[in-house]
Amino acid sequence: MKAFEFLDKVGKIDTNTMVLDKAIGYNTLDDMLTMTGEYFNLVKYGWGTSILIDEDIIQKKNDLYHTYDIKTYPGGTLFELAYKYGEIDKFFDTLDKLNFNAVEISNGSTDIPEVDRADIIKQAKQLGFFTLSEVGKKNPKLDQEYSEQTRVELINKDLESGSDLVIIEGRESGKNIGIYDNSGNIKKDTFNMIINNTKKDKILWEAPQKNQQIDLILTLGNNVNLGNINSNDIISLETLRRGLRGDTLGKV
Amino acid sequence: MKAFEFLDKVGKIDTNTMVLDKAIGYNTLDDMLTMTGEYFNLVKYGWGTSILIDEDIIQKKNDLYHTYDIKTYPGGTLFELAYKYGEIDKFFDTLDKLNFNAVEISNGSTDIPEVDRADIIKQAKQLGFFTLSEVGKKNPKLDQEYSEQTRVELINKDLESGSDLVIIEGRESGKNIGIYDNSGNIKKDTFNMIINNTKKDKILWEAPQKNQQIDLILTLGNNVNLGNINSNDIISLETLRRGLRGDTLGKV
Amino acid sequence: MKAFEFLDKVGKIDTNTMVLDKAIGYNTLDDMLTMTGEYFNLVKYGWGTSILIDEDIIQKKNDLYHTYDIKTYPGGTLFELAYKYGEIDKFFDTLDKLNFNAVEISNGSTDIPEVDRADIIKQAKQLGFFTLSEVGKKNPKLDQEYSEQTRVELINKDLESGSDLVIIEGRESGKNIGIYDNSGNIKKDTFNMIINNTKKDKILWEAPQKNQQIDLILTLGNNVNLGNINSNDIISLETLRRGLRGDTLGKV
Repeated sequence: MKAFEFLDKVGKIDTNTMVLDKAIGYNTLDDMLTMTGEYFNLVKYGWGTSILIDEDIIQKKNDLYHTYDIKTYPGGTLFELAYKYGEIDKFFDTLDKLNFNAVEISNGSTDIPEVDRADIIKQAKQLGFFTLSEVGKKNPKLDQEYSEQTRVELINKDLESGSDLVIIEGRESGKNIGIYDNSGNIKKDTFNMIINNTKKDKILWEAPQKNQQIDLILTLGNNVNLGNINSNDIISLETLRRGLRGDTLGKV
Repeated sequence: MKAFEFLDKVGKIDTNTMVLDKAIGYNTLDDMLTMTGEYFNLVKYGWGTSILIDEDIIQKKNDLYHTYDIKTYPGGTLFELAYKYGEIDKFFDTLDKLNFNAVEISNGSTDIPEVDRADIIKQAKQLGFFTLSEVGKKNPKLDQEYSEQTRVELINKDLESGSDLVIIEGRESGKNIGIYDNSGNIKKDTFNMIINNTKKDKILWEAPQKNQQIDLILTLGNNVNLGNINSNDIISLETLRRGLRGDTLGKV
Repeated sequence: MKAFEFLDKVGKIDTNTMVLDKAIGYNTLDDMLTMTGEYFNLVKYGWGTSILIDEDIIQKKNDLYHTYDIKTYPGGTLFELAYKYGEIDKFFDTLDKLNFNAVEISNGSTDIPEVDRADIIKQAKQLGFFTLSEVGKKNPKLDQEYSEQTRVELINKDLESGSDLVIIEGRESGKNIGIYDNSGNIKKDTFNMIINNTKKDKILWEAPQKNQQIDLILTLGNNVNLGNINSNDIISLETLRRGLRGDTLGKV
C-alpha cells in the first residue's frame, strides 16, 4: 500500500513515459526500480552508450527492466551507426540476442533515404519489436532547416510505415532543438503545427526539463507521452502528472 | 578517525541542514549515509513524492535516517493536499504510523486562513512533531505579491504559534522566488528586511545553489540554517561551512 | 565482450581522463566501476572533501579504484591547507598511509612562492607519486589577472620541475575561469596561446561541460586529456571520444 494513498485522487495514468539511461549500474538500477519501476514503461540506453558496456550486463539490465514491464531499446544513434556500416541485419539480430524488445529508427546524425527508413520501420515491426522512430536533427542548424510542414509530413509518413510512436527530438538538454528555443521554452508555431496535423496520442515529446514537462501536461493533458526523462526525475514527473506538486496541483 | 583530520580547524558546527530527498532508493541511501549521515539533521521527502512510494519503504527509510539522528518529514505540498481534502487528523495519524518525527506546515500552493495555520502549528507541536513552517508561494507571480513587511509578519506569527524553524521558500531551483532573483542571486532588500526583523537562528533558508550557500555562509556565518540541499552536495556544503573549499577557505 | 562491438571503429584510446569524485559511497562506486572503470585513469576526491570522510573508507575506495588501474588523489585545496598550516611532510605521509598514489600541487586558493612550488613538485616525484600541478586561481577576479604569457610560463615551469601533467583550472562549473568565458565557451586567444607554447600532451583540461568536451575533442583530437568529468558522464565522454554520439559521429 502506498503512503498517504488517501491524498491521491488521480491514480494510475495510461500513458508512455520514456526514461534516459546513461549507463546506470545494475545494483543501483535494481534499487531505483523498487521506487520508480511502476511509473514508466520505456527506457532508452542513450545514443551509442551500449557499445561500451559488456553484453551480459546489457542482457541482465534488459531482463530486470522487463520484470517491471518496461520496454528497452538502444538510442537511435546506435541504429544509425549500423545503417552507416551496412549492418542492419546484424543489428536486429544483436538486439534480439541481448533481449531488447523495442527499437528506435532515426536519422538525427546521418542521412538515410526515406524509402530505406520506411522499409526498416516495416522490418522492425515484422520482427516483433515495439518500434519508435524519431524526427529531428541533433545539429541545431540542420534541425532548423526543417519547415514545419516537412516535420508534419515526416511524422505522418513514419506512422503510415508502422511506427508505434514518433519521437520529437529534444536531446538530453532540451534546448535549441525541435519545438524548443534556446532557453528551452516551447515554440508555439512549431508545436501547434504538429498537434493540429498529426495523431496526438502517437507523438512522444522529449522533454528533459521540468518546465517543459509542466507545459506539455497543462497543454495536452496529464497523459501526454513524454521522453528523455532523467532517471532522478521519474517520481517528480509522476507527481506532476497527478497534481502532487505545486506546479500542477489543482490543475490536472 | 577522519582522513587528514589535522587539516580541519573548525570541527563540528551546531546548525540545521535540511536535505531534499526526491525518492532515493533504500540501498543507495544506506550507502550514502555512511559518508554523509553526520553532516545534516533534517530531510524532506520532496512535495507529494511520498504518496507514490510504498508505506514499508517510507517507514524503513525513516528508521534508517533516525539512526543518524536525522529528522524526517514529507514536503509541505503533502500537508496542503491533506488540508484541501479535510484530512488533517488522518494526515497526522499517518505521519505517526510511518515514523515521521517532523512536519512542515505551508501554503505555497493553496490558500489557508491564518487562524487555521496557527492552530495546525500548535496541534503539530502538541502531537510532539518537530515543526517547520514555510513562508512563500511556489508561483513566482503570487510570491512577488508579498510585501517585505508581510513576509516578516508571517514569519513572526509562525514563530509565535510555535514553529521550531521557519523556512524561506527557495524551491528546488533557487530562482525567481523568495529572496532570489531570476539568476538565483540574493535580493538584498528582501533579505535585509528579514534578517533585521526576525530571529536569525529560527530561519532556515532554502539554498539549493552553491553560490547561494556561499553568500549566506559569508553573510550570516557558517552556522546559518540551510535547506533544499541536493543529496549530492551534502559533503560540498559541509566543506564550505568549514572553509575546506576555495570559496570560503580562510574566510570562515 | 562488448554489446554491438562491431559498430565501434575506434577502440581503446591512449589518453588521460580525470573524474571528479564528490564523495561517492563505496557500494555505489563499486557498482559504477563495473560499467565505467575501464574508461578513465585518474580520479580526484574534490577539494577538501576527504577531510570529512573516515580513513578506512578513503583507503577502501583507493584500493577499489586501483584494481581498475585508476590513480587517486585528493583535490589541490587539501594540499594548500597542508602548506598553509606547515604540514607538508605529514600530508605526504598521510597520502601514503591512505594508499593514494597521485597528488595535486596547486595554489588556486592561496599564495605559494614559486620556489616552494617547484621544490614540492620535486619532492612529490621523489616520493613516487604521479604528480599533477594546476595553474589557475579559483577566484575569477584573481584568475583574470594572469596574463596569457604568465599562464604559459607557469605551465612550463611546472613541467620543468617534473609535473607529469599540468591541469588548466576549470572548477566544477566550467564557467568564467581559465580558458572559459561566462557561458563556458572557450576563449580562443587564451586557448591558442597555451597550445602554441606548451607541450600539448602534458596539459589536462578541466572540462566539466559536454560542449567543452566536444570542442576540445574536435580541436585537439579524441585523445585530448580531460578532467573534472562528472561521474555520471564518464560513458558519455567515451562515446564522444569514439564518435558514438551525434556531436562527434563521423568527425573523430
